[in-house]
Amino acid sequence: MSPLDRLFAPRNIAIIGASPRADSLGGILLHNLAGFRGDIYPVTPAHREIGGLACYPKPAALPEGVDLAVILRPAADVPAIVAELRNRCRFAIVVSAGFAETGRGELQEELVQAGRDAGVRLLGPNCLGVFNPARRLDTFFLPADRMRRPRRGNVAVVSQSGAVLVSLLEALAKMGVGVSRAVNYGNAVDLDAPELYDYLAGDGETTVVLAYLESVGDGRRFIAAARRLAGRKPLLLLKAGKERSGQSAAFSHTGRLAGRYEVFSSILRQTGLREVGEFEELLDGAHALSMQRQVSGTRVCIITNAGGAGVLAVDACMRGGLEIPPLPRDVQEGLRLLFPPFYAVGNPLDLTGQVRDADYGKALVALGDHYDAFLVIALTGVAGVTLGLADILGRFKVETSKPLVAHVAQGKLAGKLETLLAKSGIPAFPTPERAARGIMLLLGGEG
Amino acid sequence: MSPLDRLFAPRNIAIIGASPRADSLGGILLHNLAGFRGDIYPVTPAHREIGGLACYPKPAALPEGVDLAVILRPAADVPAIVAELRNRCRFAIVVSAGFAETGRGELQEELVQAGRDAGVRLLGPNCLGVFNPARRLDTFFLPADRMRRPRRGNVAVVSQSGAVLVSLLEALAKMGVGVSRAVNYGNAVDLDAPELYDYLAGDGETTVVLAYLESVGDGRRFIAAARRLAGRKPLLLLKAGKERSGQSAAFSHTGRLAGRYEVFSSILRQTGLREVGEFEELLDGAHALSMQRQVSGTRVCIITNAGGAGVLAVDACMRGGLEIPPLPRDVQEGLRLLFPPFYAVGNPLDLTGQVRDADYGKALVALGDHYDAFLVIALTGVAGVTLGLADILGRFKVETSKPLVAHVAQGKLAGKLETLLAKSGIPAFPTPERAARGIMLLLGGEG
Repeated sequence: MSPLDRLFAPRNIAIIGASPRADSLGGILLHNLAGFRGDIYPVTPAHREIGGLACYPKPAALPEGVDLAVILRPAADVPAIVAELRNRCRFAIVVSAGFAETGRGELQEELVQAGRDAGVRLLGPNCLGVFNPARRLDTFFLPADRMRRPRRGNVAVVSQSGAVLVSLLEALAKMGVGVSRAVNYGNAVDLDAPELYDYLAGDGETTVVLAYLESVGDGRRFIAAARRLAGRKPLLLLKAGKERSGQSAAFSHTGRLAGRYEVFSSILRQTGLREVGEFEELLDGAHALSMQRQVSGTRVCIITNAGGAGVLAVDACMRGGLEIPPLPRDVQEGLRLLFPPFYAVGNPLDLTGQVRDADYGKALVALGDHYDAFLVIALTGVAGVTLGLADILGRFKVETSKPLVAHVAQGKLAGKLETLLAKSGIPAFPTPERAARGIMLLLGGEG
Repeated sequence: MSPLDRLFAPRNIAIIGASPRADSLGGILLHNLAGFRGDIYPVTPAHREIGGLACYPKPAALPEGVDLAVILRPAADVPAIVAELRNRCRFAIVVSAGFAETGRGELQEELVQAGRDAGVRLLGPNCLGVFNPARRLDTFFLPADRMRRPRRGNVAVVSQSGAVLVSLLEALAKMGVGVSRAVNYGNAVDLDAPELYDYLAGDGETTVVLAYLESVGDGRRFIAAARRLAGRKPLLLLKAGKERSGQSAAFSHTGRLAGRYEVFSSILRQTGLREVGEFEELLDGAHALSMQRQVSGTRVCIITNAGGAGVLAVDACMRGGLEIPPLPRDVQEGLRLLFPPFYAVGNPLDLTGQVRDADYGKALVALGDHYDAFLVIALTGVAGVTLGLADILGRFKVETSKPLVAHVAQGKLAGKLETLLAKSGIPAFPTPERAARGIMLLLGGEG
């Protein structure tokens, strides 16, 4: 059992600052935990019970053996609350803001000391906490109509910033990508990225990790944990505060100095860790890596029904260090016999607007052994592309372990085709360059 | 009157290869031209009339004074058809493929000669033709259920590739961005980018031009026209075929050599022309520039309710060469008095999750004179952000000519807020970096 299991899968939760008011933080939290698979202990002196749950007047009144407490009280009260949790509680999520990030470093020190004295591990302060859809665990104080949650899946998200975490989760929900665990650690006075990364490295439900960070506590420890994690499963890291102004903004945000980005970045590269350039790459990476496994390779085959989009995909792949090698001569001759003379038999293989679904299948069968990955462009403006294409690509995907991604453009049919492709484990991207980025990430390169 | 007016706003159109069959090219074209503001002359020997329109048995039977003919017949027949149009027709769009792009250079030469001899200006071959929603002119052979058309607006799109044009138009339609003119010129044996750019430079409905190209005929002529156009209105150029493989793919696509990209790109830079890096930047540029005017400047103010997103926006702005200067001291002091102590008063100005709509207004009023452009981040997960924010930002926008763009994240409320912001002329982007790119384009920099 991992040391953090009871943080991500607690058997019970105490809500310190519980409330029956639907618009209060405590009320929202109770509502969001309605399906939680475990016991809930509301803590408040103001009520005897809330929604049928017996309330505890103060933290010291809680039973022993509480796995997780979520603290929603004003910052100044938090150290005393943590002290009361001594011998009662393993983990406390301090949602409350108003510590070092607003200049109150002393109060934050007090909190750290209180956690140490009480033997309570702290997440936060100034954080949203954890999300584990398998257990219906959701400590975010955002109502469902304000924040759409993603479904259960295999992507973990670990973010220093709460808002970035929320944006990521909403975007993943919109894309239909499922999440295994999500965690926001805010000021990270105790539990920090390294321990969270170690937990996710061992978590069986997680196959890819998206990480957003602005600053790093102990650099060596961070790099070591990131390497351990990246050795087990793909880790996509987005580091903000790359520029001087960004660095000072990052400081006022979570109260930790962002450090020299260049140094950080060069260490990442030296240790073989992948860094992504912007928010959208995290999404594209999650899209690709939630569906397919990373393999090594550089040789990409592009099959398209739209010359221009094929050229843009070539450009993007090559900018990313991939190769678009010509077709082997014999395969080329075979395809020329198979296809009408006006198809451009090369790499990209341009099936033109006259394409029919089956042509993609024929091409993949002929080319499957000769490349490391396949980027299929199927713009749906032409009559020969139908929803049947999803089956054809899906059949090829079943028979190969090689990455296969699609770019289908934005029409009505494209939306349906994307959904069908997703069911076959094939991610579809809205632009040629984003599809190329998906391939790069699946081939273990930089996005 | 511009020489190309009758191409983009013909008084009548001959459809050579008209058909009553709904699934034939001729049938689709007739259907798409149902609302066309002018006369339609179907040309076919097989029918006397189609849908109430009298048919002409052959091109030579057409009356004189035809502004535009659209030719849908097999490539081999096209030169003879063009010859028959002599003295009858000003412009012919050759939709037919099967010329130089499939190795039939001789047939293409024949076509060029036929056009010259007949005094008919040719668009294409291997192209979709033109789209002008104000005149209900639409020569694209794609049915409405295959390709969604954008509404009428102020963005012109000029593309060498038909498929890229379709992808762009569908994406613009999805974003709610309107289009003034669209044109795909394919193999460009006669009418080419320079003349089309000159036309769009003078077109009163067009305020921004998106251009996609793979190759350039006469380099000097191209650069001169692009400069004339860019001197009148923003021109966003996407050149594909940047890499060697992409270049050969571009050749088989439209039958013209793509040329050394590095040379092209450096000439563009020297002449002050802006080049965008990928497809998505054309969309982001259209989004921003369809709503707001380009101004010069580099000083950006970022106002956010989410620290992390603010930091990402800073990074992206600074990567793009913009500045995020600190707040003037007196403004800073004023805002500290106005706002709760935990707001981080700097640039970015972090209003935190405790923000209320009105705070954005107060900040903009205080900061409006001190910066060239404003990037507002309003993540809708928090209760204090409501749809009322659109009014507040809209009021500021009315009073300023400075660029103002928003980043609102992906939730349900965010979608509604985006729509309201669009009505106030404020583009909203789905990631901090794309919002920063919008600002860069509005400030006349590189995207």
